[in-house]
Amino acid sequence: MKPLDPVEFRRQGHMVIDFLADYYQNIEKYPVLSQVKPGYLLESLPDCAPTYPESVEAILKDVQKDIIPGITHWQSPNFFAYFACSPTSSFLGEMLLNGFNVVGFNWVSSPAATELEIVVMEWLSKLLQLPPTFSSSSDGGGGGVLLGTTCEALVWTMLAAKEKTLDQIGRENTYKLAVYCSDQTHVCFQKAAKIIGIQPENVRKVLTTRSTNFQLSPKSLDEMIKRDLEVGLIPIYLCATVGTTSTTAVDPLATLCEVTSKYNMWVHVDAAYAGTACLCPEFRHFLDGVEGASSFSFNAHKWLLTNLACCCLWVRNKSLFTKPLSTNSEMLADKATESGKAVGYKEWQISLSRRFQALKLWMALRSYGVTGLRERIRKHVKMAKDFEGFVNMDTRFEIMAPRYFSLVCFRVSPYAIGKHLDNDHEANEFNQKLLESVNATGRAYMTNSVVGGVYIIRFVVGVALTEDRHVEMAWKLVQSQATSLLGTSTLLKTNLCNHLKKQLGM
Amino acid sequence: MKPLDPVEFRRQGHMVIDFLADYYQNIEKYPVLSQVKPGYLLESLPDCAPTYPESVEAILKDVQKDIIPGITHWQSPNFFAYFACSPTSSFLGEMLLNGFNVVGFNWVSSPAATELEIVVMEWLSKLLQLPPTFSSSSDGGGGGVLLGTTCEALVWTMLAAKEKTLDQIGRENTYKLAVYCSDQTHVCFQKAAKIIGIQPENVRKVLTTRSTNFQLSPKSLDEMIKRDLEVGLIPIYLCATVGTTSTTAVDPLATLCEVTSKYNMWVHVDAAYAGTACLCPEFRHFLDGVEGASSFSFNAHKWLLTNLACCCLWVRNKSLFTKPLSTNSEMLADKATESGKAVGYKEWQISLSRRFQALKLWMALRSYGVTGLRERIRKHVKMAKDFEGFVNMDTRFEIMAPRYFSLVCFRVSPYAIGKHLDNDHEANEFNQKLLESVNATGRAYMTNSVVGGVYIIRFVVGVALTEDRHVEMAWKLVQSQATSLLGTSTLLKTNLCNHLKKQLGM
Repeated sequence: MKPLDPVEFRRQGHMVIDFLADYYQNIEKYPVLSQVKPGYLLESLPDCAPTYPESVEAILKDVQKDIIPGITHWQSPNFFAYFACSPTSSFLGEMLLNGFNVVGFNWVSSPAATELEIVVMEWLSKLLQLPPTFSSSSDGGGGGVLLGTTCEALVWTMLAAKEKTLDQIGRENTYKLAVYCSDQTHVCFQKAAKIIGIQPENVRKVLTTRSTNFQLSPKSLDEMIKRDLEVGLIPIYLCATVGTTSTTAVDPLATLCEVTSKYNMWVHVDAAYAGTACLCPEFRHFLDGVEGASSFSFNAHKWLLTNLACCCLWVRNKSLFTKPLSTNSEMLADKATESGKAVGYKEWQISLSRRFQALKLWMALRSYGVTGLRERIRKHVKMAKDFEGFVNMDTRFEIMAPRYFSLVCFRVSPYAIGKHLDNDHEANEFNQKLLESVNATGRAYMTNSVVGGVYIIRFVVGVALTEDRHVEMAWKLVQSQATSLLGTSTLLKTNLCNHLKKQLGM
Repeated sequence: MKPLDPVEFRRQGHMVIDFLADYYQNIEKYPVLSQVKPGYLLESLPDCAPTYPESVEAILKDVQKDIIPGITHWQSPNFFAYFACSPTSSFLGEMLLNGFNVVGFNWVSSPAATELEIVVMEWLSKLLQLPPTFSSSSDGGGGGVLLGTTCEALVWTMLAAKEKTLDQIGRENTYKLAVYCSDQTHVCFQKAAKIIGIQPENVRKVLTTRSTNFQLSPKSLDEMIKRDLEVGLIPIYLCATVGTTSTTAVDPLATLCEVTSKYNMWVHVDAAYAGTACLCPEFRHFLDGVEGASSFSFNAHKWLLTNLACCCLWVRNKSLFTKPLSTNSEMLADKATESGKAVGYKEWQISLSRRFQALKLWMALRSYGVTGLRERIRKHVKMAKDFEGFVNMDTRFEIMAPRYFSLVCFRVSPYAIGKHLDNDHEANEFNQKLLESVNATGRAYMTNSVVGGVYIIRFVVGVALTEDRHVEMAWKLVQSQATSLLGTSTLLKTNLCNHLKKQLGM
């Protein structure tokens, strides 16, 4: 094997492109949720690496035979689970960045990697109308960076908040530091707090309720902080969310920042999924108040066409942000970075090695253009709205949280299964069965969450290949599985349900 | 734009493959080290994202015009800097994993992603002859995981060591915890300690010397730990290195583990670069003693043909390892993982999202086979050995550390510039100038380090395209630049140098 031989590279590369094009062409034929049993691959692959080289043809045959059956098809138009991760032209950017495979830990190791990252982060910052203080082009000391995931953004910003405080009050007070979130905040918040050494009992969660749409209440936060201060805790950090994982709830940024400003806390805004929607003027109001925050992040790999793993983070104060983890290493020294003429991105993250991520994001932004991006977001939101309409028209079902973006949270109501309004336990069991039966068909894949003790089915639109017909089909599938599970008495119960709903004025 | 339309996807994909094949074909025409000035790209690209979609043709033209001049060509056969990152067939695996773009955070989200990771980690574990206790197929409770980088491996294992100890002695003793490394350990050790909240003064560095080849001395470590215990510190963690960044020094694992076992410490073995060499039987002895360690990692993206960023980590006790950061999330719940039938890899790392990294590693291992991998490693080592031979034959130069693998550390000796043996300061200045003049030609790229106060030039072989002729050319370039810098009196000085060397019996 002659590595990177242009003739051979071309032949093999084209072969894989054709393989993937065929995969996309046939993707609807595969069950969306993989139907294999645990251990299927462990049992079928050899125990040891092969002694001799094998051809790409042979390997691709095995990808088809062994790997594809074990894939849950995130690019299937019938994938409505979690939040979608559906790149398109970013794929070409991934090819380029993997072809160059530069390790851009400082400016000189590949100037284009550092500078293109600054460029795309500026472009996005403008599109999202982030406050100029977050921008590296202003003199305010802010800046943006591409990380892997939101988890990294949380660890990093929380660490900055911790170190800033400890520099002021002394390291011996570490055990007093407290960080705040709601019970809807992503679980990686807890991971981040654990990693940087916040006492477990000082990870403070404000409870939310369905009646207030699972929003983090500024009043409850303020009360909690006041009580904590009384017992000697020091509040340092709040994570507010725009578009929570379970229901896409939106925390009231402006009022929350008013509260935290009294206590000099770092506020991070996590808009992992919904941030992308805010590229459209009609959704931008969900970010109102972000100008009071210390940092903001969203995942380009969720809804902004980009391959895994690509989280965009901006901070208002880059010296606070990078100070805790700046390293001096002669090996990695770089005059341009040291002179302040370039950004030294290795000080902006945990790892020193960095992929040339900006290239794929740049590719996505250019090949779609702002109009193309917005059109795509609006199309997904429209499809979710349609699905919401379908749910509303079937009286056996109920919407469980407001639909702001492209997520619909719904369930079969306790009425429909002949139970009282408050019998969530049996409704939970029923809806779990319903979801499992939908997914077992392999014709669509949705996931669930549990909020306020209630099991909800989550239907997310966000895959590039999804069209209206897939959404309609998914809804019909849900309906028919529900009908079959509700059994022969369904009609009766539906009538009862309609009757009750009317009585309650719903 | 119709996303993922098979016809369009095929056309664009083939276009990028051809672009990259041309890039490899022409790669020797580009200066290895990018010659642009800071700000070159910021000045040439527009301030805002484009409003309307642009064609892939137009974007590729700009990659050629704007990006390639700003790339330091890590895939150039004349790249001898840092440690190389030179994938070949892993590129095809990257295409596949980016095409599928599954988010394998638990088993069900893509069973193949989890199971193939187990398979390749088992393959590698056998090839490296790691102790069976590290293997997930034994009952010993060990296992392997693919992370991004060594930095992550260090944070993660250090956190496990910390939490294990605090569970025993109480969280209020956090400030007493101490972690150990040598002054040759990678800088990310300090980052890791800072992140998890080890007191800065408790990050304990054992000093190394040139006379002992920059090895971490078990005796010095033991003495340091004893002194630390006397003042009340609690030693929890040691990072030993097989193949340090500056000189590829190898710490004596067996003796170090004997020391640490007395104190019940976690020992992590970082073989980021050199681990790959240990796939060859003749290098495996460098890992002798790893059976006493708690964890072991190496970077497949350095020398094992794999694209960034891919670090292989094994731990002996997976429950200690995953306990600190296991999260319960209804959204991400997965029956197969919970039943213990599958590995839940989201508990093995900081982030929840995961790329399907195993696919590219599997592709690399299969397309090379064990024989192909070993042949490639041996070829690189042979070329480094040849370079070392060249250096030894020119009396103006000296080798500054033993060459174990494919890194040669050398400099122009103080003799040759007419200085005394111990005048490192001027020798440092001279060698820095020499390196800068070599890199400024654009015909080769090497980097440097400073060890024991001495500036050394590092010459690493590891790029797929590098052949004997490139190594020879690089050496001639170093020689001619040195001759030109040493000026007309070089010959005289060389003679003097030879004279002195003989006198000293060197």
